[in-house]
Amino acid sequence: MSELRRDPILDTWVIIAAERGRRPSDFAAVSEQLTVPSGCPFCAGNEAKTPPEIFAIRGDTPANGPGWEVRVVPNKYPALQIDGDVERAGLGLLDRMNGVGAHEVIIETPDHLMDMAVASPEHIARVFDAFDQRTCDLRGDQRFRHIIIFRNYGAVAGASLSHPHSQLIALPIIPSIVVAKLEAARQHYADKERCIFCDMVAQELTLPERVILRNEHFAVLSPYAARFPYEVEIYPLRHSHDFILMSAEERLALGETLRFILQRYREALGDPPYNMMLHTSPSPLPRAGHPEYWGTLAYDYHWHIELMPRLTKTAGFEWGTGFWINPVAPEDAARVLREGSDATGYNE
Amino acid sequence: MSELRRDPILDTWVIIAAERGRRPSDFAAVSEQLTVPSGCPFCAGNEAKTPPEIFAIRGDTPANGPGWEVRVVPNKYPALQIDGDVERAGLGLLDRMNGVGAHEVIIETPDHLMDMAVASPEHIARVFDAFDQRTCDLRGDQRFRHIIIFRNYGAVAGASLSHPHSQLIALPIIPSIVVAKLEAARQHYADKERCIFCDMVAQELTLPERVILRNEHFAVLSPYAARFPYEVEIYPLRHSHDFILMSAEERLALGETLRFILQRYREALGDPPYNMMLHTSPSPLPRAGHPEYWGTLAYDYHWHIELMPRLTKTAGFEWGTGFWINPVAPEDAARVLREGSDATGYNE
Repeated sequence: MSELRRDPILDTWVIIAAERGRRPSDFAAVSEQLTVPSGCPFCAGNEAKTPPEIFAIRGDTPANGPGWEVRVVPNKYPALQIDGDVERAGLGLLDRMNGVGAHEVIIETPDHLMDMAVASPEHIARVFDAFDQRTCDLRGDQRFRHIIIFRNYGAVAGASLSHPHSQLIALPIIPSIVVAKLEAARQHYADKERCIFCDMVAQELTLPERVILRNEHFAVLSPYAARFPYEVEIYPLRHSHDFILMSAEERLALGETLRFILQRYREALGDPPYNMMLHTSPSPLPRAGHPEYWGTLAYDYHWHIELMPRLTKTAGFEWGTGFWINPVAPEDAARVLREGSDATGYNE
Repeated sequence: MSELRRDPILDTWVIIAAERGRRPSDFAAVSEQLTVPSGCPFCAGNEAKTPPEIFAIRGDTPANGPGWEVRVVPNKYPALQIDGDVERAGLGLLDRMNGVGAHEVIIETPDHLMDMAVASPEHIARVFDAFDQRTCDLRGDQRFRHIIIFRNYGAVAGASLSHPHSQLIALPIIPSIVVAKLEAARQHYADKERCIFCDMVAQELTLPERVILRNEHFAVLSPYAARFPYEVEIYPLRHSHDFILMSAEERLALGETLRFILQRYREALGDPPYNMMLHTSPSPLPRAGHPEYWGTLAYDYHWHIELMPRLTKTAGFEWGTGFWINPVAPEDAARVLREGSDATGYNE
């Protein structure tokens, strides 16, 4: 029988309809060709094909030429523009702002084939160094209230270029999903003086059924109320509201952890398309009393990473309700990803 | 320059990034073959291939044989099960219910090729009669708190069978998106003693720019904060919290209105996949004081229909924020759909 489960943070519900369950191989993710398209603008040597770099981790080499390890450039087709002040306007019930923000591309490697699933943990840690640098820089801009970093892997997941890259968008408002998470954390802290994420992770670690990996610094969980098959969340075990506070050792551990789960995706699901989201505290605002002032309150937040393979379709029911139907029980997903079994050994 | 717009009901934001704008033809919806697959379980004569019918609009013909106009059957692969009581359980921070609910398929016509876009308004009105009958019947079941009716058209939008059909799911809780809409309506009514949807429609009708159609009974609008290109909302002009209260004349007008917009989709966008959602008030509950008691309060709600062509991909930014990036300005979408221009005359 199927089951309704509540997301303990967002207070939304999912339907776990596992009797519709299928083997991992049934999702038939089509592995995209791992070939290098000629003239890829993100490959080493093609630096002139992107806008000038904003930041790079590189040796003693000139900007906008080869010799870099991670390179950050403005998105050539930005959703928001970097210039101008935030202007708010309204007409009756309708509110708008001009589209001020930053939209950057983090080119994770000069090597087209060196995806995070095969990169060294040290290299992945450097990619997070770049995330950190860009976040700190943009937080200095008083127009921006929140920075979201995400990675779209595969065309189905929205990637238009196959070269390994992430994106960063700085927004002039805190988006609704982030507000919902922040408010859940604040309410729980007000009630219990504990972090809701710490509590949830601690509870999950008491049982093996949804734990995919636990190492010294991170827990990788199959969410109790996962919306999508094989969805994964990565939580730092040490309470911290902001990913930029990671130590060098934690960053390396994160590189190992991320590579582990991305390799498991490839083994179990055949290189599926996925979205990855880095959730961290909003930018500190110098305006206490402002309704969106989370600057110090956000210490009760807990940064984390979400990974969502894109193996199922969303349809009218999901769009009309905010409910999700997940045909794979999170416990089955955890077992597959934990054990690294290929499809043949599953559920027999 | 792009623009941020707030949804006046849901209080979420979208980015209208129209300089990324494309012509309608650029979305390249792939028209699905309008051929009849052999052995379609929803075609006339194949009634034995479905579970026994729950309801049908048919002449003096026996159940589960030919001779029907609209036929409702249980979904063969239901997300929820009809049998059993709602049982709630919890463990620490985790809450669940067993998956009790109804999941039905409304087969809209015995004719595989008689999609809503080409059916007569009278026939579409009969499909809504079937929605009405099933809704009334299921509202008598005290286990169910909300009924959502939706239509997935095309494989990209989640349809697994091409025969014209809608689906109905009765849920033991009111889903989060519906709660958000109900609360917006309740708050606005508390503030102003007016319906927020009536106010919004009235404001939109003062300007032509986002009005696609207005007839005696309905307004078809391009939402100010549309999440998707060519998204459409249909509102009854007469305030009513529940679609079952439509008069026969209004039902016929809805048939005309729906066919109009579906034909415009075909003309302008090449038969795109889409999701359609019917939003109406939740089931009246006999339990005043219950936190989910909306039975009488929902008179301040306003039923409506949402239509979302599935022409763009959702990616990490959308999943991580609840923000949407829409590359087509709602005003441009309204002009295309209002004027029925094909792509060649657009934006020149």
